[in-house]
Amino acid sequence: MKKIYFITGNKGKILEARNKFSTVDIEIVQKNLGYPEIQADKLEDVAGFGVKHIQERFNEPFILEDAGLFIDVLNGFPGVYSSYVFHTVGCDGVLKLLKGFNDDKRRACFRSVFAYMEPRGKPLFFTGECYGKISTKMLGDHGFGYDPIFIPDSSSKTFAQMETEEKNCFSHRGRSLNKLIEFF
Amino acid sequence: MKKIYFITGNKGKILEARNKFSTVDIEIVQKNLGYPEIQADKLEDVAGFGVKHIQERFNEPFILEDAGLFIDVLNGFPGVYSSYVFHTVGCDGVLKLLKGFNDDKRRACFRSVFAYMEPRGKPLFFTGECYGKISTKMLGDHGFGYDPIFIPDSSSKTFAQMETEEKNCFSHRGRSLNKLIEFF
Repeated sequence: MKKIYFITGNKGKILEARNKFSTVDIEIVQKNLGYPEIQADKLEDVAGFGVKHIQERFNEPFILEDAGLFIDVLNGFPGVYSSYVFHTVGCDGVLKLLKGFNDDKRRACFRSVFAYMEPRGKPLFFTGECYGKISTKMLGDHGFGYDPIFIPDSSSKTFAQMETEEKNCFSHRGRSLNKLIEFF
Repeated sequence: MKKIYFITGNKGKILEARNKFSTVDIEIVQKNLGYPEIQADKLEDVAGFGVKHIQERFNEPFILEDAGLFIDVLNGFPGVYSSYVFHTVGCDGVLKLLKGFNDDKRRACFRSVFAYMEPRGKPLFFTGECYGKISTKMLGDHGFGYDPIFIPDSSSKTFAQMETEEKNCFSHRGRSLNKLIEFF
């Protein structure tokens, strides 16, 4: 069975990928190598820099992922810095920044980019997106990160109000993984 | 005369450094090489990574600088991402995040870190800080970035309400440069 290494420290991501890849007879192996994330506007640039760093010291096929929440009216903020912003100003901070804005000013998009790299190859990128809006208050207890304030299109619930299975129907990461699997 | 290269695309920084270094008979030469900035919590880590990247392709003594605004009650936000945050949510966004907070919750610090590197040496870091608070509204037309909302301690004016000379008495960059010059 072909093995692909997933460079991440996040066990949740591993489980999600392993589950999806089981359908194409590829084994996903966790490899917690660590790599620098650069400051850039695009997820592809962050992932691409990580790939370059990893390929210098690792000679097997591997994937890595970067993701973020992009809010239109805030010029894409928090974007590639979603994790940092979550750990400093949090969901509360994002709600404050959008205070007084009505629904059509609350458009947002969760994005996930997977980079796949064969030894001596060039990185291939697979993007998944989930459009929606930012709620006016935090709702729900499930999930993590910005889940309590993100309502995907064609739903009236936040991600944090959904069970995992329902959330996965919308998930940006699920969609980028699907594209990666189609490739194989 | 000894030459030190300043790796930056910012002409304002060059002028400020050149002015200060003239007192110690060192010529500051601009070198716009460009280097990746990593995502990290500390300016020293961003500068240190930049140094490593530059030294692989440049064999002369050089300096580079990273700076940011750190707001206590926001856990250091916008910190090393000050430039990105300025270009997305701006001063208005920072004021929104602090809405309803009184003076003792508005503490902030401008920080500047210079890294100095000799060929085949180890980087040396020189830090300058300016403590103060975030104003409740934007005031003044001078300067750039967060100057209209930052009031340094022992003043009642924002940086943007000061002429360059007055601002330089407080400036975080002036202070880190002074330490670097003391070193020489």
